[in-house]
Amino acid sequence: MIIIDGCQYANWSEQIFQEMKEGGVSAVHVTVTYHEDFRETVENIADWNRLFERFSNYILPGRTADDVRRAQKEQRTAIIFGFQNCSPIEDDIGLVEICHQLGGRFMQLSYNNQSLLATGCYEDNDPGITRMGRQVIAEMNRVGLVVDMSHSADRSTLDAIEISKRPIAITHANPKFWHKALRNKSDEVLKALGQSGGMLGFSIYPHHLKGKSQCTIGSFCEMIARTAELMGVDNIGIGSDLCQGQSDSVVEWMRVGRWTKQIDYGEGSASDAGFPPMPSWFCGNRDFGNLVKGLQDYGFLEEDVEKIMGGNWLAFFEKSFGPA
Amino acid sequence: MIIIDGCQYANWSEQIFQEMKEGGVSAVHVTVTYHEDFRETVENIADWNRLFERFSNYILPGRTADDVRRAQKEQRTAIIFGFQNCSPIEDDIGLVEICHQLGGRFMQLSYNNQSLLATGCYEDNDPGITRMGRQVIAEMNRVGLVVDMSHSADRSTLDAIEISKRPIAITHANPKFWHKALRNKSDEVLKALGQSGGMLGFSIYPHHLKGKSQCTIGSFCEMIARTAELMGVDNIGIGSDLCQGQSDSVVEWMRVGRWTKQIDYGEGSASDAGFPPMPSWFCGNRDFGNLVKGLQDYGFLEEDVEKIMGGNWLAFFEKSFGPA
Repeated sequence: MIIIDGCQYANWSEQIFQEMKEGGVSAVHVTVTYHEDFRETVENIADWNRLFERFSNYILPGRTADDVRRAQKEQRTAIIFGFQNCSPIEDDIGLVEICHQLGGRFMQLSYNNQSLLATGCYEDNDPGITRMGRQVIAEMNRVGLVVDMSHSADRSTLDAIEISKRPIAITHANPKFWHKALRNKSDEVLKALGQSGGMLGFSIYPHHLKGKSQCTIGSFCEMIARTAELMGVDNIGIGSDLCQGQSDSVVEWMRVGRWTKQIDYGEGSASDAGFPPMPSWFCGNRDFGNLVKGLQDYGFLEEDVEKIMGGNWLAFFEKSFGPA
Repeated sequence: MIIIDGCQYANWSEQIFQEMKEGGVSAVHVTVTYHEDFRETVENIADWNRLFERFSNYILPGRTADDVRRAQKEQRTAIIFGFQNCSPIEDDIGLVEICHQLGGRFMQLSYNNQSLLATGCYEDNDPGITRMGRQVIAEMNRVGLVVDMSHSADRSTLDAIEISKRPIAITHANPKFWHKALRNKSDEVLKALGQSGGMLGFSIYPHHLKGKSQCTIGSFCEMIARTAELMGVDNIGIGSDLCQGQSDSVVEWMRVGRWTKQIDYGEGSASDAGFPPMPSWFCGNRDFGNLVKGLQDYGFLEEDVEKIMGGNWLAFFEKSFGPA
């Protein structure tokens, strides 16, 4: 069984890479950028290059599905770069290809707020994909940079599914029918995503879970089963949104960036501003076995467990990461 | 009579500064930025600083209404910096105050397209001012950087008028009732602008004129008279949008920036892609006298001619350029 995580933003260290190995994780889509501009993104990638050099016994750059297969064979973890915002391309469509050349494989078109391309899920109004957004989606399609709409609003997401000539992803979110959070997705979005061959990665970030930190593995697996009925068992995977070892200053950067002088609490609140505690059954990269067992206990067929735990992501990488 | 132009983007040179002197122009709001980011904007300002040093007999930096009065007294021209897009502040609210410290006095919240703050007039849908837009307007109000909505869409403009605690400007556009261009403004916008103490600068850019390059001075002055009835004679001025001596590559930069790999013709077309010829009565900075004569011939009171030609802009600068 191949295990792939569709989204993490950990405080990367040898210990976490070791835990990935113990957890049998063959690939992780890691967040390189929240609000960083192009130059800052390059700096983050240079940091990753140093980690690849130093910890080559644990990790390797993941740019193709073959890199992921190689990682599995060598019991290492392929690190796939993604951007949670379109800030790395700034206002320049020419930076789409540059970001792909630097290893980027996923880019969100907006992060909570309105961007130059699309609307975020916290805005009051969503006009859909913008003029620049249409141009950028075509360019992302051309080079093989996957459109990710995890933090976008519904109309923009439906537009993106329609405009994109290649399947898109929502790397980390859950269905709204299960837990009504602004970040979770409507049935309409999930159906359109499934029908277009796109992928949903299920998030284990407590604000996206029914019962938050107290959510049970049984409830989580039931949600997966119901979502599989809605959008097909071939279009779902894990996107844990694990922020292992990060301090609360990091969640403030995610929420506030540089766009406001006030504090924005996002999915939290003044009294609950930091990272929420993870559910007991998924605290880190060693816990993927709990998900496998949870799905098996719930009664999923073994082949479906394999698809959900990584097979679907691998097939999606295969068709998505190269030029059109 | 004080003569002030609410918008120009000329290919600046000693000759043009000489023509400003001959035309008796005491202040011009000049475009420093179309799509330039912060660093590029700083470069443009450094270029201006060199011009101020070299041509101090003609021009001086215009940061206050007093600078404009001084320029009038000394028969020079005060140069007031403005940005036609919010690109100079990138994604960083902290750059609002920095831009003001560098001499910026006007900033458009969007230029034709969707920005992080507001919608441009060429987008299909306008959701109004964004989350970041609300924060930035408050910051612009605080430091004395005027909100300019010349290239923005209607709903965003109405939102900006309502959200801004200080009057805003539309430095260069005309009423839609006179010439139906995407860039011209609806009665609803103009009324709200006038009622809030804001300013409209009348554009002489041919795409904004009835009859384009063939527009007569009589028709232009009639439009001014009808607009004065709609929004008050104290809230209007000139914003010629004169692009004296610029090559056609400049209009392409304005329209295309870095946001698309295709050509966007804006208000022009494939067969009419360049700068359109100016009307015969306003070809450059020596021609302000034609506007004065046109208004007088139309029958405006002398005190109203004085208001329209610069008095209103001066009063607006007085109340707008300092801290709240």
